[in-house]
Amino acid sequence: MKIGYLGPESSFTHTAAVNAFPSEYLVPYRSIPACIKAVEFHEVDLAIVPIENTLEGSVNTTVDYLFHQSTIPVGAEIVLPIYQQLMVSKENKERWEEVTKILSHPQALAQSQEFIRQYFPNADLEQTPSTAYAASFVSEHPQEKIAAIAPRASAEKYDLEIVKENIQDIASNHTRFWIIGKDEAHLPYLPVEREQMSIAITMPSNMPGSLYKALSAFSWREINLSKIESRPLKTSLGEYFFLIDLVVDKPLELIEFALEEIRLLGGEVKIFGKYGIHTIYGV
Amino acid sequence: MKIGYLGPESSFTHTAAVNAFPSEYLVPYRSIPACIKAVEFHEVDLAIVPIENTLEGSVNTTVDYLFHQSTIPVGAEIVLPIYQQLMVSKENKERWEEVTKILSHPQALAQSQEFIRQYFPNADLEQTPSTAYAASFVSEHPQEKIAAIAPRASAEKYDLEIVKENIQDIASNHTRFWIIGKDEAHLPYLPVEREQMSIAITMPSNMPGSLYKALSAFSWREINLSKIESRPLKTSLGEYFFLIDLVVDKPLELIEFALEEIRLLGGEVKIFGKYGIHTIYGV
Repeated sequence: MKIGYLGPESSFTHTAAVNAFPSEYLVPYRSIPACIKAVEFHEVDLAIVPIENTLEGSVNTTVDYLFHQSTIPVGAEIVLPIYQQLMVSKENKERWEEVTKILSHPQALAQSQEFIRQYFPNADLEQTPSTAYAASFVSEHPQEKIAAIAPRASAEKYDLEIVKENIQDIASNHTRFWIIGKDEAHLPYLPVEREQMSIAITMPSNMPGSLYKALSAFSWREINLSKIESRPLKTSLGEYFFLIDLVVDKPLELIEFALEEIRLLGGEVKIFGKYGIHTIYGV
Repeated sequence: MKIGYLGPESSFTHTAAVNAFPSEYLVPYRSIPACIKAVEFHEVDLAIVPIENTLEGSVNTTVDYLFHQSTIPVGAEIVLPIYQQLMVSKENKERWEEVTKILSHPQALAQSQEFIRQYFPNADLEQTPSTAYAASFVSEHPQEKIAAIAPRASAEKYDLEIVKENIQDIASNHTRFWIIGKDEAHLPYLPVEREQMSIAITMPSNMPGSLYKALSAFSWREINLSKIESRPLKTSLGEYFFLIDLVVDKPLELIEFALEEIRLLGGEVKIFGKYGIHTIYGV
């Protein structure tokens, strides 16, 4: 089986993919839309893309692409703990505190704000397309006083020295990944912790009454929401759709009735999928 | 009066600042937290920062900083239409279609996705700290086959040629800016269109009942919400606060009663401000 993932190798998505599919053929893609398209064009059987991080919130590219431009189902979710490392070239390992520029992906820089403020308040911050790109750039410029923020796997791949460990702002930083391409993705190595359904709701005339009514369809049935988030519909300011995660611990029929009630109120419901959540420990 | 803004000069925030305060002293800052801190440390009287874009949604850095780390009030809102331009060096103006790399801020790249897909499906996309940085880089490397996506003001400032106009994905792309530092910011050149109040609500035990109850406090009083959005609390996955914009077209007491009801339910309410909304036309 071929599995597409948001590359490059040594990215967090790669770590999630390796843990979920240790013996399948993994194909890196350069962007989230490219990953999703690879499934649409049958280049791969499944793809794995990030959907949300504890600190930074939803990955808008994934949410927006799946909502606006795709009908690919979500078959499973993987939750991966995220640890960020500060790394420099081996040449610079004794004088890492002299670093004047730090490179990383915008989300990793955002996740390490407190550390940067404390240790490198005057450093230039340079955004890179990925954390792996930052690590590779540092390894190609070993004399420059630069550092990368990236996962442990990047230090190994690019032969860099980790000089400060686990620098992310909070200890319990996690990223959620979706495995897309089939209604149900079987992950034999990772047990299912619980079931969830993800939907998007667009209500006809906007707030407040409409969202309130939509939520009441879940509330009186005691269907639990584990997430609700609005995203702009991209038409004009003030028009939103709602991304909702439902806990599936009741008969599925009850949820279907709730969705039918929302449709009768004039709402549109898009179902991304009903899937199991798998957590990876000890990476 | 000194007004801090998210620089550099020729950024969209600068355009908003120039229109709001044509005769005040404008001070550029390198980041949104730096802008907000400049107000906290009384380096400037007011600051102007982006808060939301039609296409990309909330500017998380602004929302999170104001929610978690600041008590600075919001005194006014400015709505600016956003047009993105594709620009190259004057040397490259005849052969702009040979461009192999496009530089811009991640939000501007996201706002121009459709254009890029159509005209430059194979170009490398490089994220820069600002659109102005991208324009300045292109002007410093006039021989390279690169282009920048940036506002019109950047083409003028860096002497670049606009080769494709208004390339953003949708025509009605707007960005909201907040003027922070005073309860009420007087903008003599921009009339007030309507009044709004922005608050953040954190409910004690999480969804679904709690958000539904909080919304009912507004719903039965017929207080209109023009926005509701969840942001992660940065504690663990599944913990959120809610950013809500209320339309102020009823007696303020009614809103205060609603907020008091939410507090009695155990919710925490943070008020960012009650302010006028000003729209800039014709830029």
